[in-house]
Amino acid sequence: MSHSFTEPEREGLYRAIYERRDVRSQFLPDPVPSHVLARLLNAAHHAPSVGFMQPWDFLVIDSLEVRQSVLEIFDRENERAAGNYDGDRGQTYRSLKLQGIIESPMNLCITCDRSRGGPSVLGRNTIMETDLFSTCLAVQNLWLAARAEGIGVGWVSILDPQELAQVLELPEQVYPLAYLCLGYVSEFLDQPELQAKGWRSRIPLSELVHRDTWGHLLESEDELRGLMD
Amino acid sequence: MSHSFTEPEREGLYRAIYERRDVRSQFLPDPVPSHVLARLLNAAHHAPSVGFMQPWDFLVIDSLEVRQSVLEIFDRENERAAGNYDGDRGQTYRSLKLQGIIESPMNLCITCDRSRGGPSVLGRNTIMETDLFSTCLAVQNLWLAARAEGIGVGWVSILDPQELAQVLELPEQVYPLAYLCLGYVSEFLDQPELQAKGWRSRIPLSELVHRDTWGHLLESEDELRGLMD
Repeated sequence: MSHSFTEPEREGLYRAIYERRDVRSQFLPDPVPSHVLARLLNAAHHAPSVGFMQPWDFLVIDSLEVRQSVLEIFDRENERAAGNYDGDRGQTYRSLKLQGIIESPMNLCITCDRSRGGPSVLGRNTIMETDLFSTCLAVQNLWLAARAEGIGVGWVSILDPQELAQVLELPEQVYPLAYLCLGYVSEFLDQPELQAKGWRSRIPLSELVHRDTWGHLLESEDELRGLMD
Repeated sequence: MSHSFTEPEREGLYRAIYERRDVRSQFLPDPVPSHVLARLLNAAHHAPSVGFMQPWDFLVIDSLEVRQSVLEIFDRENERAAGNYDGDRGQTYRSLKLQGIIESPMNLCITCDRSRGGPSVLGRNTIMETDLFSTCLAVQNLWLAARAEGIGVGWVSILDPQELAQVLELPEQVYPLAYLCLGYVSEFLDQPELQAKGWRSRIPLSELVHRDTWGHLLESEDELRGLMD
């Protein structure tokens, strides 16, 4: 169709989607040049947002002091989390490296200002979380752009958001949605680390596609199935 | 750096990011071929998810009966929403077309199964909403892939999620995160419709980037500023 991209352009997008990884261990110390960082931030800023509210802000974090404080929050939360697993599973959990806060050359916090756009934001009437959802879309834009630039991104989700907000001196209405570690990497792994380490496998897509209402799986449609397996 | 993409590949990704639109009015009736739909769903399925939990499912909705029911939910919620605006603003609101549920050749609901992966999901300890956030990342993958395929996507956020779940016969633990309209389009608008119609403007990126902690704007850094304005 006339508005579709050229083959190499499409390839670039799909390559970013399939070769993007959550990076924790392969960071190189080389700094991310500011013009490249600007491209990443601008990509994030062009995400869709409900009512065009653009609820995001970006905190570019170099300070070792700030990062050290964030790492302390992570360590506490991760110790608590490890307690959820027994035996082999517990051992595997503790062997996983789940953040690169200090080794990565920079951290980036993408926040969501829950009050941006005032009390009535178009399209944010019934579902108040649409501002958080919009901010996630910005995260994914940045994540994919980073991959295309050869930059790895790791999302550190094992953090207490209230403690994080305090360290980052966020105003009350601002939520620290995504705390990311960024940097060039020695390699992008072939598959997600949790899959490679046997923690969890990818679900066959054919088990996730329903027709019209829940529970009528699409499996019987040959073409769709062929591409999915 | 060695892991960055070729120029045309990078261009493809950035083009998708910058030329993606929330489409409500330009849908063509041509059906989306199933092999193209499979590419979009597979792109969504390769989004990152906390603990690799992959909480998403995809409901491919053709049924006119289902769509009609969803449109009724929209109409009720939209009428309520219009009540938030007076005078000119109210007139503008009512003039905006905010969904293409019936005109688009297909609808797609991306859901989030809040119980997938069991009670302890790696990385989902403090922040229980990380499953919803992960599902948003899948939405953005699909949205960008659709743009590259020449397919427009519109996210209908003016819906009551409980009523929507009922129409789609979702199990109790499954949340209808994104209700999307999809189809080839007559055009992708140059700029977001809300911006073109004067509803809201894009915020200069330089006002959104902070150094280390909140409130120290990066504006003084020439290179970054140069690229942002």
